[in-house]
Amino acid sequence: MSAGALPGFRDFYPEQFAERAWLFEVWRRVARRFGFVEYDGPPLESLELYTKKSGDEIVGQLYNFKDKGDRDVALRPEMTPTVARMVAAKANALRKPVKWFSIPQLFRYERQQKGRLREHFQLNVDIFGEADVSADAELLAVACEIMRECGLGPDDVRARVSDRRLLTALLRALEIPASSDAAVFAAIDKIERIPRGHPLWESAWTGIPATTVDRLLGLVESSDLDAMAREFAHVPDVAGVVDRMLRYRSLVEAHGVGEYLKLDLKIVRGLAYYTGIVFELFDAKGQMRAICGGGRYDNLLEALGGVDMPALGFGMGDVVLSDLLRERGKAPATPARLACWVAPKDDRAYVRAVNVAAELRRRGLATDYPLRTQSLSKQVKVAADAGAGRVVFVGDIGDVEVKTLADGSQTTMSLERLYDSLENDGNSDSTGATDHP
Amino acid sequence: MSAGALPGFRDFYPEQFAERAWLFEVWRRVARRFGFVEYDGPPLESLELYTKKSGDEIVGQLYNFKDKGDRDVALRPEMTPTVARMVAAKANALRKPVKWFSIPQLFRYERQQKGRLREHFQLNVDIFGEADVSADAELLAVACEIMRECGLGPDDVRARVSDRRLLTALLRALEIPASSDAAVFAAIDKIERIPRGHPLWESAWTGIPATTVDRLLGLVESSDLDAMAREFAHVPDVAGVVDRMLRYRSLVEAHGVGEYLKLDLKIVRGLAYYTGIVFELFDAKGQMRAICGGGRYDNLLEALGGVDMPALGFGMGDVVLSDLLRERGKAPATPARLACWVAPKDDRAYVRAVNVAAELRRRGLATDYPLRTQSLSKQVKVAADAGAGRVVFVGDIGDVEVKTLADGSQTTMSLERLYDSLENDGNSDSTGATDHP
Repeated sequence: MSAGALPGFRDFYPEQFAERAWLFEVWRRVARRFGFVEYDGPPLESLELYTKKSGDEIVGQLYNFKDKGDRDVALRPEMTPTVARMVAAKANALRKPVKWFSIPQLFRYERQQKGRLREHFQLNVDIFGEADVSADAELLAVACEIMRECGLGPDDVRARVSDRRLLTALLRALEIPASSDAAVFAAIDKIERIPRGHPLWESAWTGIPATTVDRLLGLVESSDLDAMAREFAHVPDVAGVVDRMLRYRSLVEAHGVGEYLKLDLKIVRGLAYYTGIVFELFDAKGQMRAICGGGRYDNLLEALGGVDMPALGFGMGDVVLSDLLRERGKAPATPARLACWVAPKDDRAYVRAVNVAAELRRRGLATDYPLRTQSLSKQVKVAADAGAGRVVFVGDIGDVEVKTLADGSQTTMSLERLYDSLENDGNSDSTGATDHP
Repeated sequence: MSAGALPGFRDFYPEQFAERAWLFEVWRRVARRFGFVEYDGPPLESLELYTKKSGDEIVGQLYNFKDKGDRDVALRPEMTPTVARMVAAKANALRKPVKWFSIPQLFRYERQQKGRLREHFQLNVDIFGEADVSADAELLAVACEIMRECGLGPDDVRARVSDRRLLTALLRALEIPASSDAAVFAAIDKIERIPRGHPLWESAWTGIPATTVDRLLGLVESSDLDAMAREFAHVPDVAGVVDRMLRYRSLVEAHGVGEYLKLDLKIVRGLAYYTGIVFELFDAKGQMRAICGGGRYDNLLEALGGVDMPALGFGMGDVVLSDLLRERGKAPATPARLACWVAPKDDRAYVRAVNVAAELRRRGLATDYPLRTQSLSKQVKVAADAGAGRVVFVGDIGDVEVKTLADGSQTTMSLERLYDSLENDGNSDSTGATDHP
């Protein structure tokens, strides 16, 4: 037997699991505060669901195979096709806006590289059925509030926001022909990785006057919304989208996350997919891959499910975010496993100690006891290592002694008083020390 | 695009997801009270991990394929090989007893039958490193406490417990040769499905005197531990295992779950796998498949991972248990989505209303507001449908009106008072009505 998981797959030992559970709990807590409800779909879907959205070239990156019923199937590489299928199937019955989230595990057969996994978990947050920019602001707000809930402020993380329609309107206003759009978008997408003098870069601008290129790049580099509002006040097509972005900005500020926001027209995401405002969250130092990416994809449900419904959403993976939290010292401490330890004083007390442990557990306290005879000093050590706040020493009859490990104090009391005191101290379903995520 | 999931796979729309989340939360809550910690492994593993445990015949039931690196891989059909692999890899570093649980999704390519799924979720609870019967009692106790936490008492569910070693000792005491063991175990396993006169049944007993068969079946049918203790007091091999079962019973009673327990030697589980006490939980009417099954498998880690470590555990699937809960009217109500609704009185109040919603969310309250203009009466209806306890009416300046939907009462207050009152009422991170699972 191979001792390890497949390459690119993770084992979550309790310590790693606790970190993952903490992050999932942050995701769920914030999404629920925003009124999103959780759903899930199958990790295995028909291959067609993915090729229909992304073309046949996606197959090279999939865990796909023929099942025993001769169906072409694939492990899900992303959640959007599943949620689009699910929403489309109940489009009429669902009250709009549909605000859903999910935390699927996703799979891609990527070439092995250091730190490159073949599975990851991804928070997916989507809104269906609302075309107004209010939904775009709501979506960015939930992503930024997750950052805040993780302890990451605007100094740690920035939301870089662009608008496909604004960029297109600027190209038209500058009289760059629509036939150049794809090449120009691709060039802007690479603006930070490919220097301006590079041949690949220059080829995008064939036939466009140098002064126009300079002006466009100036607008893109500065991404100054107020300056654009002034400069293009007389161009209705630009002024309209600038107005919408101004409203977006005021709503994002009303959400209390304006400090995270940075308009940045250099952000270009999947051309065939996104139709409006798009965004990515990055660590403020710009050293890591994107933490989160998303935007408006109003045409996808029509293409995938035959239902005309505006849609927008984002995906936030667990890997980059966890790396950032670890780097910033914001990763959670491993939670305490126990609140109480019940120590039988000798073998005659064993069955009674089991019964005391059972009563404490039934009162919601994480409690353990030795499965085999152990010295009392060994038991206190095991209890302390598991984070237990209290050790209850139990004899075969009579009162028990309760030791508080934090200060070493010890009190003798009846079992009834023990149960009463624990029921009243609000420790139910906690370990007493740190809440288990 | 196919509108549905693959055959045998489930879509979890929010309503179904909430039911699943409720069950997972019960599982986690009880397992943690018992001091178990959660882990997870990959849903895709090397095929060899499963054939090594179960032989090549398992492949017919697997979702197996060759990945793009030419590895033979399979979606996990069970969790035990994964956890055995993980524990074996760190056997020396882990403090014993290792008490772990997990809630994996498992996959089997089963022939399509009504109600027969190809995926399900299964709680796996295991203890490694403890040979004493105290661990067997602890394991049964956590399973029974889960039943109790679900609202299922001993009238709803019974734990049928057997002991491979007790049955073997009885066979020897009755002078049935060891060469008959496999056939006799198989016959006992079918005792409730195949009538005694049936040819298949009789063939197991070739060469065994009819009086011996009658005596054995009498012992198996009555499964009376106290009677066995008296009858075999003079046979040390039987008396020893009976003594151990008596101690097991007293520990199970100390755990407070004695009422669920029913010794039943008719319970025979995987022969090649289990080595000691085995158990299954059934609905008391005996109408459904087992809710849970498990036992001691002391030889598996040696066989799979080359590490000699006693082990025991159980699996409890989500499907049968959820069916039973629904049938008994114990399924949870769909939780309220919202605690608060913020209603802008008109368009001028919109941005301020978004800001109020953001403040309430930051205080931990699940809060929503309209993404587009809606009449106030429509908003109150939407809020009520989402389970919100309160609607906050917001104008563009000044105080707000807070309507309590339960009694229709309405109070005017400043925003500061609103925030203070909500922060103090203990509603944080809840919907105010029902806790979201």
